Amino acid sequence: MLTPPNAAVAAKAATYQGAPAPKGHYRAVYQLDSDDPKLISKTLHNMKNALEDPRLKGKLELELVVFSGGTVAFRKDQPYEADVLALQQAGVVLAQCQNSMKAYKLTKADMLPYISIVPTGNGELIIRQAEGWSLVHP
Amino acid sequence: MLTPPNAAVAAKAATYQGAPAPKGHYRAVYQLDSDDPKLISKTLHNMKNALEDPRLKGKLELELVVFSGGTVAFRKDQPYEADVLALQQAGVVLAQCQNSMKAYKLTKADMLPYISIVPTGNGELIIRQAEGWSLVHP
Amino acid sequence: MLTPPNAAVAAKAATYQGAPAPKGHYRAVYQLDSDDPKLISKTLHNMKNALEDPRLKGKLELELVVFSGGTVAFRKDQPYEADVLALQQAGVVLAQCQNSMKAYKLTKADMLPYISIVPTGNGELIIRQAEGWSLVHP
Repeated sequence: MLTPPNAAVAAKAATYQGAPAPKGHYRAVYQLDSDDPKLISKTLHNMKNALEDPRLKGKLELELVVFSGGTVAFRKDQPYEADVLALQQAGVVLAQCQNSMKAYKLTKADMLPYISIVPTGNGELIIRQAEGWSLVHP
Repeated sequence: MLTPPNAAVAAKAATYQGAPAPKGHYRAVYQLDSDDPKLISKTLHNMKNALEDPRLKGKLELELVVFSGGTVAFRKDQPYEADVLALQQAGVVLAQCQNSMKAYKLTKADMLPYISIVPTGNGELIIRQAEGWSLVHP
Repeated sequence: MLTPPNAAVAAKAATYQGAPAPKGHYRAVYQLDSDDPKLISKTLHNMKNALEDPRLKGKLELELVVFSGGTVAFRKDQPYEADVLALQQAGVVLAQCQNSMKAYKLTKADMLPYISIVPTGNGELIIRQAEGWSLVHP
């Protein structure tokens, strides 16, 4: 049977305010591989929130890896462009999977001009983590 | 053309019983950012299963990071409370994103009393992984 | 107000072609925990693409950890067998969560003969990352 947590435990929880961030630099790769409009917007806003976390502000390097259905977010003439552009201007690397472009028969001319193209999104996620980058997949 | 795996390969697979866990301590951060009831229940049960994995039993430290739609799981008067409480009593840190609370106009009084509040869920995931914690996002 | 990125930024993006992969060996664990047919196919094809990424070709070790709803992918008589078999023949370890088999009342006889059974999928993901493996959850 479960018993309610006691006062000591509640007090301990009340004092925890998140992991401290003593390092001078943090790096994270975000994965966007869905064409669900809600998930695309959420991913872009999550990245903005991470950049503004007071623990990480000014020392967080981000890369957004887009593949599969997520590819729509880096196309021209889509509703996410203002958010994508804001991330780019905040220094985020925008990495588009070339494999996915081929699958959707897209060329560079179909895509936003300020993105970068990488061989595969999966490979990019694997290599970045092997270099110590954190992963977030909203 | 594909050929069926031979007996040697099948025998090798039969002998693999999972990665050994030689370290004295393991740490993992779980991500819960959806209000899908099935996914919330799954996440809570996955954490219970991880704690009971015979390879990790007694040496696994867990933190559950809740943000975005997942915030419902840490509110008062919701159907997940027994499972959340069981995790808390098993020593799991329950970390709620403050940004998400603001977005949903929630105050501490709306939330379970034994949770911890962190600046952003995204920042918490990034910092924990940079410290060597594993990530699980069911 | 947002301003369009300038030519210098666009030029920098154009030169980024993905993270280099200087290490001699890379390891990644893939998570498959959904019975959504599209997601199962996507996961299996993502792994194939990662193995063929020119940066990682011939030096990428993969393990596919299946649990929860994903368990269907390792059952006999399902539509994913050709893709699962192709991964197995490419050297991918196929790790099935034993907990999930119990939950679905499945025995070894119900499963593909060349898979491996591990205590829990969650534990496997946690231990592998603690050993330095990258995580991909399509």
